[in-house]
Amino acid sequence: MSTSNLQHLYSKSACCAVPSAIREINKLVDLPGMKSLAGGWPDPAVFPGQEIIRITNKLLKNKAGKALQYGATEGVTELRQELAHLAADRYGIACDLDHIVITAGSAQGMDLACRVLINPDDVVFVGLPTYFGGTGAVMAACGQLQGVAVDDNGLNTRQLEDQLQRLKKNGQQVKGVYVIPNFQNPTGTTLSLERRQHLVELAEHYDLVIFEDDPYGDLRFEGDHLPPVISLDAHGRVVHMRSMSKTFAPGLRVAWTIGPPEMIRKMVVAKQFIDVATNSLAQYILLEFIRSGQWAKRVQLNNQHYKRKRDFMLVQLAAHFPEQVQWNQPDGGFFIFIQLPQTIDAANLLAEAIEHNVAFVAGEPFFIDGSGAHTFRLSYSQSGETVIAAAVAELGKLIKKRLK
Amino acid sequence: MSTSNLQHLYSKSACCAVPSAIREINKLVDLPGMKSLAGGWPDPAVFPGQEIIRITNKLLKNKAGKALQYGATEGVTELRQELAHLAADRYGIACDLDHIVITAGSAQGMDLACRVLINPDDVVFVGLPTYFGGTGAVMAACGQLQGVAVDDNGLNTRQLEDQLQRLKKNGQQVKGVYVIPNFQNPTGTTLSLERRQHLVELAEHYDLVIFEDDPYGDLRFEGDHLPPVISLDAHGRVVHMRSMSKTFAPGLRVAWTIGPPEMIRKMVVAKQFIDVATNSLAQYILLEFIRSGQWAKRVQLNNQHYKRKRDFMLVQLAAHFPEQVQWNQPDGGFFIFIQLPQTIDAANLLAEAIEHNVAFVAGEPFFIDGSGAHTFRLSYSQSGETVIAAAVAELGKLIKKRLK
Repeated sequence: MSTSNLQHLYSKSACCAVPSAIREINKLVDLPGMKSLAGGWPDPAVFPGQEIIRITNKLLKNKAGKALQYGATEGVTELRQELAHLAADRYGIACDLDHIVITAGSAQGMDLACRVLINPDDVVFVGLPTYFGGTGAVMAACGQLQGVAVDDNGLNTRQLEDQLQRLKKNGQQVKGVYVIPNFQNPTGTTLSLERRQHLVELAEHYDLVIFEDDPYGDLRFEGDHLPPVISLDAHGRVVHMRSMSKTFAPGLRVAWTIGPPEMIRKMVVAKQFIDVATNSLAQYILLEFIRSGQWAKRVQLNNQHYKRKRDFMLVQLAAHFPEQVQWNQPDGGFFIFIQLPQTIDAANLLAEAIEHNVAFVAGEPFFIDGSGAHTFRLSYSQSGETVIAAAVAELGKLIKKRLK
Repeated sequence: MSTSNLQHLYSKSACCAVPSAIREINKLVDLPGMKSLAGGWPDPAVFPGQEIIRITNKLLKNKAGKALQYGATEGVTELRQELAHLAADRYGIACDLDHIVITAGSAQGMDLACRVLINPDDVVFVGLPTYFGGTGAVMAACGQLQGVAVDDNGLNTRQLEDQLQRLKKNGQQVKGVYVIPNFQNPTGTTLSLERRQHLVELAEHYDLVIFEDDPYGDLRFEGDHLPPVISLDAHGRVVHMRSMSKTFAPGLRVAWTIGPPEMIRKMVVAKQFIDVATNSLAQYILLEFIRSGQWAKRVQLNNQHYKRKRDFMLVQLAAHFPEQVQWNQPDGGFFIFIQLPQTIDAANLLAEAIEHNVAFVAGEPFFIDGSGAHTFRLSYSQSGETVIAAAVAELGKLIKKRLK
C-alpha cells in the first residue's frame, strides 16, 4: 500500500473540512510540563469512576447479553424514557420517546441534524465567535456560514434580523441559525430570554431551523435557568442537542438530541448507516446513573467544583492581567473570553506562551470571518489551581511586556 | 413543540436515505415467541462478559482519568499500534499508526470513507446482492449505485470490467467499488484470489477506489485465509474496514479502518466534527483484550461455536427443504443464502412465516436493481439449535405447501 497522488478523488466535503484548532492544540497540551488553559475538557477529578465500576459490574453480571449487543439505532428505550422525563421535569421541554435520539456525543446530534437538513450552499448563521465543532459540521455538509455578533446577551438577534431581511431582498434563502444558548463556547455568555423569544419568531417568519447546541446548560453556578429555545417554539423548528459529556463521562460518548418526531425519525434513518447504534454499555450505565439519582447529585457537586475554579481564575486574572485587558464573568460553563488591546495579537502571544509552557486557544479560529485576532479563550475546567495560578501569572507577564 | 409540515427543509441526503430493512425487521424479531433466523448479530452466548468485567475494573481503578475522558479523534495510540501489528502479522497488511483510524463500528469507517470520497452522483459499483449498510452509506453521500453480479466466487470482476468499459465509452466517470471479500452479506460467498487481483488492476486502470468491507474475515471455519484486497494494492486505492463486532462485543462499537495515510487523515478530520472521538473506555478494554492474548483465543473458540451452528443449519436445511430449493455452504461468517424456485416470492413467504412466528430476511432489499424476489437470507449466528431446527422445519413446510 503505497501513497499515490489521488487528491482528485476526494469529495467536496473533504475539501471543505478544516482540522479543528482545538483538537490540534490538544497535541501540544500533552507535552510534559505544559500548563494548559486550552482544552475545554471536564476535570477528571470529578469523574464518577467508582459509581461506574459498581454499575458496570452489576450490568455485565445481569445483562451482558444486552449491554454488549447491538441495540436499536434510536437508542435504548428505557434510557429515552428516562431522558424524556428529565427533559420535562428539569428543562421544561415537553417531549416523549419519539422526540429523542441517543447520539455518540452531542457532536453527533449536530452532525445528524446537518445531514438531514443542510444541502450544499444552504446558508446557516452562527455567532461571531462560535464553537468550531458546530461550524465544522455545517461545513462538512457543504453549507455556507454567515456571522452574527455575539455580545453580553449572546447572539445579537436584532442584527440577525437585519441580515435575514437583507438576504431575503436579494432572493437568498437561509436554512438556519446555530446557537449555543448557555455559557457559550468560547465567550461564556448566555442568550437572554428576550433574544430566545425573538429567535423563535425569526425562525417562523423566515422559515428557518434553529440548531440549539446546549452542552453546558446543566453547569449553571448561579442565577436562574432560562427556558431552552426549543421550549419556546410551537412549530417544530428547533433541534436541541444535549450532552452528558460535561456532567458524566465524555469518554463514554453518550448524549441525546431532542426534536420534532419527523426530524428525529430522519436522523435515526441517517444514523443507521453512520454507526448503526450508540454504544449499548454506555447507555445502560447512564440509565442506571440517572435512575439511581446519582446524576442529579453529581451535577450539583460538579457545579460547586467548577464554580470554585471559575472564582479562582477570576481572582488570578484580576491579580495578574493589566487593566487594558477585558474579560467576562460567566455564570456557568467552562470558559472565560479575553479581549486584548488592539496592539496585541493573540496568535503571536500564544506562540510565545507555548515557549513558556503555557497554552490557551487563540480566538481567531472561533470567528468565521477571520476577525478576533485580539481575543483568546481560557478554560478553568480541566487544570488544577496550581496550574491556573502559574499560567495566568505567566500570561499576565507576557501581556504586560507587550504593552510596554 | 408541535409538528408543522416542514418537509421542504430536509436535505437531499435525508431524502436519499431508505430505512434499513434489517433494522426494521429487528423490531418484529423482538416479539415474544418469534423464532428468528433474520438478524446477523453475534451470539450473546459467546460474549466475553467475565473478561470485560475484569478488564474494566482494573482500568477504572488505575486509569479512569483516561478511560472516561475524551480521547484523540484518530483513536488511542497504543490501540492503533497494537492493531498495526495485528494487521501485519495476521492479515499481511503492512501498515503503521498513520494508516489506522479507530471508528465506532466498521459502519463508521464506511461512512467516513464515503464522506471524504463521494460527491453527489459519483458512481459506485456494488454486488447484486450486497449488504444495504454499505449501499446506504453511499446513498447518504448521494452517490449513484450500479450493480454487478455475485456468484460462487464473489463479485464478478469480468462483468465489472465490461461495465466500466461501457461507462468509460459514454464518458461517465466511476468513483469506486464496494466489496465484502469474505463470507459476504447476504450470500456467504468469498471473493477468489484471482478476482481480488483483477479488482486491484481494474481500480488502477479505471482510477477507482475500492471500499473493502471485511467484518467477517476473522470468522473462517475452514480453508485458508485469502490476502485482503488492500494487501494486493500498490497504489493506495483501497480503504479497508475491519470490525471487532463479530469477535468481541458489538455493543461497544469499536472498530478500525486501514487506508493510505492521506485518506485516513481526511477521515480523521471529518470524524472531528462527527463524534469528536470513539468511546475511550471501549478502546482501552479492547486494547487489553488483544494485548493479553484473549482476543486471538476468543476468535478460535467462536469459530468452533459458529461452525457447529452452520453445520447444524445445513443438516436441517437438507432434512426439511425440498430439492427445488438451493443454497450455498459458506466457509465462514454468519449467512446462508437461499434460492427459491421462480414460482415462490420470498416477501410473500416471509409474511406467512411471521404468522407462524418464524422470521428471516427476504432477499430483495439486498438487490439495488429490485431483483432477488426469489431469494432470502438465513443466519445461524444468533439463535440456538432448538430455534434453528424449528424455524427451518416450519419454513420447509411452508415452501413445500407452495410447491404443490
